[in-house]
Amino acid sequence: MAGSQAVRGPSETGGPLLLTCGPVTTSQSVKDAMVRDLGSRDAGFRALNREVLGRLAEVANASGTHVAVPVPGSATLAVEAMLTTLVPRTGKVLLLVNGVRGERAKRICLVAGRRIAVHEMREEMPPDLEALDGALRADPTITHVFVVHCETASGMLNPVAGIADVVATHGRRLLIDGASAFGALPLDAASTAFDAVAAASDRCLEGVPGLGFVICREASLAQARGNAASLALDLHDQWQHLATTGRYRFTPPTQVIAALHQALGELQAEGGQPGRGRRYAQNCKVLIEGMRALGFRPLLPDRLQSPTVVAFRMPKAERFLFQDFCDKLKARGYVIDPGTHGLFGCFHVGCIGRLDAGNIEGAVSAVAGVLAELGIKSLASAA
Amino acid sequence: MAGSQAVRGPSETGGPLLLTCGPVTTSQSVKDAMVRDLGSRDAGFRALNREVLGRLAEVANASGTHVAVPVPGSATLAVEAMLTTLVPRTGKVLLLVNGVRGERAKRICLVAGRRIAVHEMREEMPPDLEALDGALRADPTITHVFVVHCETASGMLNPVAGIADVVATHGRRLLIDGASAFGALPLDAASTAFDAVAAASDRCLEGVPGLGFVICREASLAQARGNAASLALDLHDQWQHLATTGRYRFTPPTQVIAALHQALGELQAEGGQPGRGRRYAQNCKVLIEGMRALGFRPLLPDRLQSPTVVAFRMPKAERFLFQDFCDKLKARGYVIDPGTHGLFGCFHVGCIGRLDAGNIEGAVSAVAGVLAELGIKSLASAA
Repeated sequence: MAGSQAVRGPSETGGPLLLTCGPVTTSQSVKDAMVRDLGSRDAGFRALNREVLGRLAEVANASGTHVAVPVPGSATLAVEAMLTTLVPRTGKVLLLVNGVRGERAKRICLVAGRRIAVHEMREEMPPDLEALDGALRADPTITHVFVVHCETASGMLNPVAGIADVVATHGRRLLIDGASAFGALPLDAASTAFDAVAAASDRCLEGVPGLGFVICREASLAQARGNAASLALDLHDQWQHLATTGRYRFTPPTQVIAALHQALGELQAEGGQPGRGRRYAQNCKVLIEGMRALGFRPLLPDRLQSPTVVAFRMPKAERFLFQDFCDKLKARGYVIDPGTHGLFGCFHVGCIGRLDAGNIEGAVSAVAGVLAELGIKSLASAA
Repeated sequence: MAGSQAVRGPSETGGPLLLTCGPVTTSQSVKDAMVRDLGSRDAGFRALNREVLGRLAEVANASGTHVAVPVPGSATLAVEAMLTTLVPRTGKVLLLVNGVRGERAKRICLVAGRRIAVHEMREEMPPDLEALDGALRADPTITHVFVVHCETASGMLNPVAGIADVVATHGRRLLIDGASAFGALPLDAASTAFDAVAAASDRCLEGVPGLGFVICREASLAQARGNAASLALDLHDQWQHLATTGRYRFTPPTQVIAALHQALGELQAEGGQPGRGRRYAQNCKVLIEGMRALGFRPLLPDRLQSPTVVAFRMPKAERFLFQDFCDKLKARGYVIDPGTHGLFGCFHVGCIGRLDAGNIEGAVSAVAGVLAELGIKSLASAA
């Protein structure tokens, strides 16, 4: 880790702060929770794991109706497990696609041989609820609708509650990719009808990466036996095995789960999803105001902007070379994702993880310092 | 973690020692390597990851011919990725099954719709090389042979080198589940012909669980495009993406990979696979001698016994209740897997992880203490 250890940054551990979309900066106590050996079949670990799964369902107010099923790996493995376990081979899923995670879900379905319909939009456009209504009316063979709660690269906040209402009106089932939203953006199973939401231990939950999970409506999961064409990604099998034995089918990432246990305690201490959402909203406000003052322009208007990640249009200033910008920012203790994502000319900055408004102010100051170092006086006039 | 934190054990961290088959006891430095935040797209992490993948191939002396492809999750995910990416849908795999991991591979193939033939043996019997030769001669449609290097539950050491010779003679391809062997038992790509071996970051590599991987013959992997019916478990896609971009397709378990980086350094410092194998062999010898002296009887004769895990026949003494035995042993600082595995009446004790002969002597003393506590004078006469 020569590259990253060389940097002394402003984080609790002295390392650089991650202003990425995941993995994110975690608290010292979350990291410390990993410094132990845990027997995966031991009663202590099984109790810890039960608490984790119970709390995950609580985050979505879904304890009475849904169960959390772990998928060791990542959020994308959880999304694949959700789509291939819950959509039967005779089903058809309408995918609402306006970014990289939506594109990925489409690819998952194509590779797995699931029938799909696609409602595709540009990355800066939200799904059109009237078009969704029309598509469901026109095609009664559609059994499921899939949406990404918050698109990672663009920061687009898709209107999940409104989509859920349309889907429910037509008696279809909603599947949500909640990777960059779960824990920070409102999702209440009591008021928003969804069959499943997939996410992971990192990002807005502020654990370390390595455990995906799917919060599934129990009645739907019970009907999903035999749908999956993969043993590893079969949510029904994982659920039944855990429920019967209290153990994972295959070696779980015990330290990652111990870190998530600590992280969920810290989420609760922060006031749950509303508390965390408030902190991120404040981070996002400070970031956008600060970056605007330096001449950067966000891709999205405020009404479409999620508080988790902000996409900025790539400056066209001659002296602004993006990789160089990233390297100089890292030397000042802040890591952003190098390279652009998606189809548009943007870079993105995350507001998530163990960061507060003061950290974001520090990051904006560092950006200003890098611009000065590059000899760029004004991006606004250059852009 | 009330259950496990309550125990003050003999490990470096004061926690109990794991005498399980994985997750295993890790060194303090391996655990400490996780206490940092890493950006997964950052140059520092990418360099660390390249080193990890390079060293994994070196462990099997396979750097010139094979590539290590990571599969976040576990060894079983890696086994599924190996079987479904490398065996084409028109192929047929002969599975050598004499334990739980072999059974699992069979289930993976059945769920994924791969054509199989099965050579099944009792758990205490090794595969019959003459029968293998006959099966390959009789069925030219068999394209691949699958074997488990070391069966987790029984401790059976399957004769991989001999099997590889038979498979190569018939021009077929060998796939190995190396989960409980890789890093400690000899496997040399230069002398043993195999197309792929799957394993994970924990067990004999002494990292923490969370990253599976498959070391694939590059020429075979290059022909495997489009075989997989899963995006997450498509080794070809993962390989190509990493080779092209240096990045994972989906968020990798960064802390788990940092721990593995440290663990691979410690493997090298121990003299690589031969050095580690010697320590485990010594652990195993001390364990078997000590347990035999207390009246426990190993399932396997020494010539079939791998040095990684030992299955002992369950004592029939009236006062010996296995869960109670496990609980009392844990109270003394040693965790073994509660519950039996596989089809036979045995329990197993791991010799792997950051344990030396002194630790094993301590564990045997603790077993003696528990037997005394239970009022059992002699197992030999009771069994």
